Amino acid sequence: MSDHPLESVFRPRAVALYGISRNMQNRSNQFFLRGLMDQGFHEAAPLYLVNPNADAIAGLRCYPSLSDCPDPVDYVISLVPAETAEGLVEECIAKGVRALHLYTGGFAENLDPDRAALERRLIDRARSGGLRVIGPNCMGLYQPAARMAFIPGHPKEAGDISVVCQSGGNAMDIISGLGQRGARFAKVVSFGNGTDLGAAELLEYAAVDPEARIVLAYVEDTSDGRALFEALRRCARAKPTIVLKGGISSAGARAARSHTASLAGSHEVFIAACRQAGAAVVHSLDELIDLAVALSTRLSSVAGPRAVLLAVGGGYSVLTTDALAGCGIDLPELDATTLARLREVVPTDGNSIENPIDTGYMGEDSEEALRIVTDAAAHDANSDFLITMLRGSNLSPEEEQRAIKELAVLQERSGTPVAIAARRDVGQLAEESLRLAYDRGVAVFPGPVSAGRAVGLLLEWRRQREGLPSLP
Amino acid sequence: MSDHPLESVFRPRAVALYGISRNMQNRSNQFFLRGLMDQGFHEAAPLYLVNPNADAIAGLRCYPSLSDCPDPVDYVISLVPAETAEGLVEECIAKGVRALHLYTGGFAENLDPDRAALERRLIDRARSGGLRVIGPNCMGLYQPAARMAFIPGHPKEAGDISVVCQSGGNAMDIISGLGQRGARFAKVVSFGNGTDLGAAELLEYAAVDPEARIVLAYVEDTSDGRALFEALRRCARAKPTIVLKGGISSAGARAARSHTASLAGSHEVFIAACRQAGAAVVHSLDELIDLAVALSTRLSSVAGPRAVLLAVGGGYSVLTTDALAGCGIDLPELDATTLARLREVVPTDGNSIENPIDTGYMGEDSEEALRIVTDAAAHDANSDFLITMLRGSNLSPEEEQRAIKELAVLQERSGTPVAIAARRDVGQLAEESLRLAYDRGVAVFPGPVSAGRAVGLLLEWRRQREGLPSLP
Repeated sequence: MSDHPLESVFRPRAVALYGISRNMQNRSNQFFLRGLMDQGFHEAAPLYLVNPNADAIAGLRCYPSLSDCPDPVDYVISLVPAETAEGLVEECIAKGVRALHLYTGGFAENLDPDRAALERRLIDRARSGGLRVIGPNCMGLYQPAARMAFIPGHPKEAGDISVVCQSGGNAMDIISGLGQRGARFAKVVSFGNGTDLGAAELLEYAAVDPEARIVLAYVEDTSDGRALFEALRRCARAKPTIVLKGGISSAGARAARSHTASLAGSHEVFIAACRQAGAAVVHSLDELIDLAVALSTRLSSVAGPRAVLLAVGGGYSVLTTDALAGCGIDLPELDATTLARLREVVPTDGNSIENPIDTGYMGEDSEEALRIVTDAAAHDANSDFLITMLRGSNLSPEEEQRAIKELAVLQERSGTPVAIAARRDVGQLAEESLRLAYDRGVAVFPGPVSAGRAVGLLLEWRRQREGLPSLP
Repeated sequence: MSDHPLESVFRPRAVALYGISRNMQNRSNQFFLRGLMDQGFHEAAPLYLVNPNADAIAGLRCYPSLSDCPDPVDYVISLVPAETAEGLVEECIAKGVRALHLYTGGFAENLDPDRAALERRLIDRARSGGLRVIGPNCMGLYQPAARMAFIPGHPKEAGDISVVCQSGGNAMDIISGLGQRGARFAKVVSFGNGTDLGAAELLEYAAVDPEARIVLAYVEDTSDGRALFEALRRCARAKPTIVLKGGISSAGARAARSHTASLAGSHEVFIAACRQAGAAVVHSLDELIDLAVALSTRLSSVAGPRAVLLAVGGGYSVLTTDALAGCGIDLPELDATTLARLREVVPTDGNSIENPIDTGYMGEDSEEALRIVTDAAAHDANSDFLITMLRGSNLSPEEEQRAIKELAVLQERSGTPVAIAARRDVGQLAEESLRLAYDRGVAVFPGPVSAGRAVGLLLEWRRQREGLPSLP
């Protein structure tokens, strides 16, 4: 994709942090300097710090201005206040910078006409000078392959999920939430007010970016409806695309206005447009993350809404079954072969071989019996997928990983997608276990209902795509 | 209440554990012996262990049979298999036992006609002999004032919440979930198949039990609709009563049948009956717990659905606002006095003083400013309650507790109920902080949306009670 006009924005050869503070406790240093150094950007490419009052910060040399930086600079991260941003735009243009990321806030989102005018002026000047702007009022880029990050602690390995996100905080929640599940990222863009580079252009890019296999979008501003729809359509026809809209309530829309100066049109119209475009629509960050996990594991091939649930606890199974029904997931009666196999190994008292299968009272040496139960469940002819809880709350990471490997093999052998459900929180599993599961194509969810909800959303999305060309 | 016929069941003077195992790793020993000893039952009253093959277990003397126990026994916990339970019933009647708790499962819930007949026979014989039966297939009683528990680790202090629960696992989830929130219990009954003592009779008792101020019910079997409705009506007219129904979907109903042999009538009819009876209806354990917290704190007096949300993070605020709207909670525009006070202390850039109030960028020494923000929010004339997140993810327990005390004072002074929201999980707060909050009447929720949902349920319940006499 070296010929795409945004390629130079996304693959800077040299970055300058402009307005970096000498005080390493300063918030923006904590974010950007530590983020870039954590990824080792400075070890692979020039990282210039611009601060006229310091010689060096965190071991890196400081320059008094952008023009003093010895070599070309492609990408500038602005940490200066809004009042001085116009001067910085001129400096960037003079230096031949390709992209300016304005972490700087205090523009149109302040709901002050003077600040909105300043933002407009600044963007117009940047455009006339050939400078693209990310923001203002945003966290910018996380792309591990380019060693860029806006906060330390994000995964260093690259993956194939790209995120187009109007909120920096939500971007961080997606990275940490999906990252915990084992997923990795191609490019994450937090674009804030999106005055120059907005959702539409970023989605157009994601549509053709070969690094992005799945695209997630969080959008507040839908005022540029036509362009957004066209971009969504192109993206959603090329790869699985999930959209979360913020500001769908009237109070939420007001919050979005003072967050990113966003103007929202009709929520219903936008959602209908997403669906027409072929994108999946979700209603919360949790749903976004769960559906992304489903789409990037074997669960993506689930044939229908009929699940076998392997759980522990009678009342828990009953309530979970009800909640699954609320997500459109049915637990069918098991077929006769499955029942016969279960009857052989599951003691009647205290257990249930109805679906849900409750094996709370299996006795001490039940490991082999439980293996048979799981195998029988995965081969049930009446069911489309299996939801199973890893046995025991106190498995060692090694035991977890052995169980996950077995489930991965079972999933391939049986052709039945498997969803592993924690009891309440995926954090109950070890980090390496979650990575292993993801890498083997086994989806892990915080609980059985999240698993069912993700499959429900996936099937809804698939129904809505009927008539559209299949995804590659 | 010494004249209530169930008083002797709930306040046994001597308990026997019948069929206790010499192997302390045995599951039922782990439950009942450890549970009773953890509460110190054996230090306050006779605890007889019945096992013909042991002299002593866990330091307590064993007796070969019930008749060998030297003094009267009121209450027997049966750990024997279903096949031998009839003999035990005869022994109990001969000994003059008042109540038999059959932990023993393997009766009608096995969906085997012979076992159903055995259960029927056994219950009939018990009744004719003046013996009440709890169960079969249940965990029995947790009542800290009587030093009874069915598992170790439950709180030892008594409280004023009673739980009538058809599932032992759900009872444990309620005790641990609500217990973590700082709540304490009067009586929790897990009643399983409920063949003798069922939901109706237990609710009738809870209605008049002076120890129970709030009653929570989890019910699977609604086949005795008339009696259940009458009991619910009496209970809900006497005290706040929350009902969760398990088995509302067809697969869930099948699961309930093989869990507690429950027969469910029409879900819609039952829910309508609950509402007519004046009980609050919830749809999950999380809702049950959240509403119980709301009802037992100052939040119970909330006047309406208008909240001020004090959060951190723009995108998070937007999505939270949307989700609150989905629960019927509105974030109104703040009144002019509030806005003026906020403008004085909140820097414009990066923050928002719209409602939601986002104070993500307050600078270093913001403690006093945030105190003013919180005070202004609690005094806002347009709002009915305040949802606030405790600042900072790394407060020490002491800092948390100072903040909670300040919020408790603010709540009293302003007359505005305060809900504290964790970011995702109340476990982010220290145990003592949660206890302190509850004791001071400040509700804590896993997140702002749970807080809003609880208030939405509370207001819905209040609307449904219109026309009914006020609760005392």
